[in-house]
Amino acid sequence: MSGTIVQRLAGFAASVRAKGLPADLRDDAARRVLDVLGNSLAATSERPAAAVGALVREWGGSGRATAIGTGDRLPEPSAALVNGTLAHSLDFDDTHLPSVLHPSASVVPAALAVAEARGASGAALLDAIGVGVEITVRLGMAGYDEELGNSVFFERGLHATAICGALGAAVACAMLSDVDEEGIADTLGIASSMGSGLLEANRTGGTVKRVHCGWAAHAAVTAAGMARHGITGPPTVLEGRFGLLQAFCGEQTDVDAIVNGLGERWELPGIFFKPYPCNHFTHAGIDAARRLREQVDVSDIESLELGAPTAVLRTIGEPREDKIHPRSGYHAAFSGPYTVAAGLLGGGGLGVFHDDFTDEAAASPQRLALAAKVHCVPDDRCDEIFPHQFPAVLRARLSDGRTLEERVDANRGGAENPLSAAELALKFRLNATRVVTEDVAERITELTYGLAGLTDLGELTGLLHG
Amino acid sequence: MSGTIVQRLAGFAASVRAKGLPADLRDDAARRVLDVLGNSLAATSERPAAAVGALVREWGGSGRATAIGTGDRLPEPSAALVNGTLAHSLDFDDTHLPSVLHPSASVVPAALAVAEARGASGAALLDAIGVGVEITVRLGMAGYDEELGNSVFFERGLHATAICGALGAAVACAMLSDVDEEGIADTLGIASSMGSGLLEANRTGGTVKRVHCGWAAHAAVTAAGMARHGITGPPTVLEGRFGLLQAFCGEQTDVDAIVNGLGERWELPGIFFKPYPCNHFTHAGIDAARRLREQVDVSDIESLELGAPTAVLRTIGEPREDKIHPRSGYHAAFSGPYTVAAGLLGGGGLGVFHDDFTDEAAASPQRLALAAKVHCVPDDRCDEIFPHQFPAVLRARLSDGRTLEERVDANRGGAENPLSAAELALKFRLNATRVVTEDVAERITELTYGLAGLTDLGELTGLLHG
Repeated sequence: MSGTIVQRLAGFAASVRAKGLPADLRDDAARRVLDVLGNSLAATSERPAAAVGALVREWGGSGRATAIGTGDRLPEPSAALVNGTLAHSLDFDDTHLPSVLHPSASVVPAALAVAEARGASGAALLDAIGVGVEITVRLGMAGYDEELGNSVFFERGLHATAICGALGAAVACAMLSDVDEEGIADTLGIASSMGSGLLEANRTGGTVKRVHCGWAAHAAVTAAGMARHGITGPPTVLEGRFGLLQAFCGEQTDVDAIVNGLGERWELPGIFFKPYPCNHFTHAGIDAARRLREQVDVSDIESLELGAPTAVLRTIGEPREDKIHPRSGYHAAFSGPYTVAAGLLGGGGLGVFHDDFTDEAAASPQRLALAAKVHCVPDDRCDEIFPHQFPAVLRARLSDGRTLEERVDANRGGAENPLSAAELALKFRLNATRVVTEDVAERITELTYGLAGLTDLGELTGLLHG
Repeated sequence: MSGTIVQRLAGFAASVRAKGLPADLRDDAARRVLDVLGNSLAATSERPAAAVGALVREWGGSGRATAIGTGDRLPEPSAALVNGTLAHSLDFDDTHLPSVLHPSASVVPAALAVAEARGASGAALLDAIGVGVEITVRLGMAGYDEELGNSVFFERGLHATAICGALGAAVACAMLSDVDEEGIADTLGIASSMGSGLLEANRTGGTVKRVHCGWAAHAAVTAAGMARHGITGPPTVLEGRFGLLQAFCGEQTDVDAIVNGLGERWELPGIFFKPYPCNHFTHAGIDAARRLREQVDVSDIESLELGAPTAVLRTIGEPREDKIHPRSGYHAAFSGPYTVAAGLLGGGGLGVFHDDFTDEAAASPQRLALAAKVHCVPDDRCDEIFPHQFPAVLRARLSDGRTLEERVDANRGGAENPLSAAELALKFRLNATRVVTEDVAERITELTYGLAGLTDLGELTGLLHG
């Protein structure tokens, strides 16, 4: 392949559209669709998603795409705005390590809206999503600075999930629209002037971060629509002097990461599904806790030491007083001590589930007493592995004087420790049945796992509400 | 005033909403509305605007706001997208020096759409626009680096017009909506995660830059709608470690510029209207040419030297061969030699108008012969004044051996050399009558200049199409 970066990405997308993805990658994409649908259905009563739903209802318009949860029929950019907000609202969506991107929450809602509006097949939808997710995470990799040990996007306060997500989702939308290879490149040129999102809400509050993936999906649908109507973009929009990577990451950019081995080596299947609805850095600690509880009676535990990568301690371990007394269920999801307690005491879903992150659960005296026994410390081996995994080690001192240690190097949900199709179906069912019946959840699972053979999306999208 | 920057901006906006702008600032805002309406009507046959119009027509929706040119009734975010695209399509909209921002093209369309949808008065519309424009240019000033002699936004390839425009326009929309002071601050927090736009199209092509102000206006309307429905933003979104200024301008930020003298010293009336539909750097040369033609017969001119600030020569003077042989009317608008020739030979509008920038005019042998006599050179005094003005000096050597010099330090259209209400009305009439009749243009002018006393915008918005 030759040409500028967007020309090469467009060539890749057009080639996948023509030939179709291999079956294993289509299966992977279908799992991501199911995961997004479940996370979205579970989020329909969240306030930010409801607010966005009410707003787009005011706007009205041609009902060619479905809003998850309500079943409202909306223009595709509005459906993308609502569904993208839902998809990311519970922080339960997939994560690409080490770029710490959440690709599917932007790509799947955007692609689904356009596929539905344009009557695409399930296979075309999966191909578009596979490519869109792949491009999203590769853009994130371009912004990763090895020396810094961090994404430059993050270092600058830019929400790479939303910025790169808008571009990847736009490619997915363009693949599902009547635009040729050049039009896909134009779509990237347009979406590059739309990708946005700041991380300041993580510091000082505000629910705006919940809508970031919705806005990215909205931008993606709009960019592809503009390209279809003849708006064009600069071919050098990624690598150029006044292009996206210079603007957002400056000189610290690994442009080659975007296209190296494109179409041969796929990031897609290595993107981590989340088994637990809490901060990803807490997951390995939960896994370790779940192994420990098989060996000891929790009441025999005198104290616990949670070893983790140094870089994650400020997120899950500090300040200690806050972490052992979470102010709410939401804060509990970012607490190493609390999530270890939940892993030892909880049990819903795949081990820890939504019930463990209600305000009530986060105030439970039994859980708080156990959380208070947990001390977070840096761990050398974890530092070596991070950020390719988010590992942890848990050491328990028991009342009889024994010490037990459980070390988790590979997160559950990744390629080295995958969630099975059945486990992902369970996650979906427990998410979805907050809104739909068991039977409907079962049927959505069948249809989604069968998307590669589905010629019409109508039955599936018709089931996505209570 | 105390608090974070967005809190102070919200306090300022709420205070203006409560007390109203002084009459002279309302007059200024009304002129900006007339200017945007004229530039937009003149642009309705431009391809990017037509493409966006076709796209939002597909989306459909509640017809609460008017698309300029077609009269389509659309949801307010769609109207903002179309009208913002129109407003900036001809590069004929106002400019704030030295931040080189074009504020009204985002602010006016966004505010007009929300005002129309919510039945606001003309006075409320003007107050919102005045504040929105003021905030837009002050954000741009925060990104200006004196040492660099340039805006950091521009240096990084970021289109400050669209990014700052989204925020200023969002404040205007919030002022016209049912949100309190806190909601205005939230709107800024939300819009900060939406502001976007890259300049790469200036380097390697693509029409996407034409839609930047449309997207900014669309984002602004959406952000205010989200705040109205309860989405919140981080109070430190501008100055915070992960906030907009750090993300887009890094350490080179003059945060104080945003709030210094806010409400006491206004940038608003000093923002330059454009008398001529061509690159702003060429304007002083045209003014000088127009003065020269009063003193000499053009046929007596042997050669011309156009002195300009060094920084603008690469835009209007180089490469010389291209500049004296513009490839199209569009390119002619960026040529110092051609625009000087147009100033000496043209005569429509305020001296030079759309007729001077058709492909035909740009190929006229008489004009090209004159353009070939012009040599562009750097000028020290111009360098001293730039970028507070875009000055020029024009020296003509005549066939009788005489030399004449005309120096223009202050651009026509700014506070030191203003366009009168009548001149702006003439510009509007010539723009608008590309689409509407003389009578309609006259009535739009009356209604717009009388906005401060208008209780209902219906008659005005009903006239904005052919």
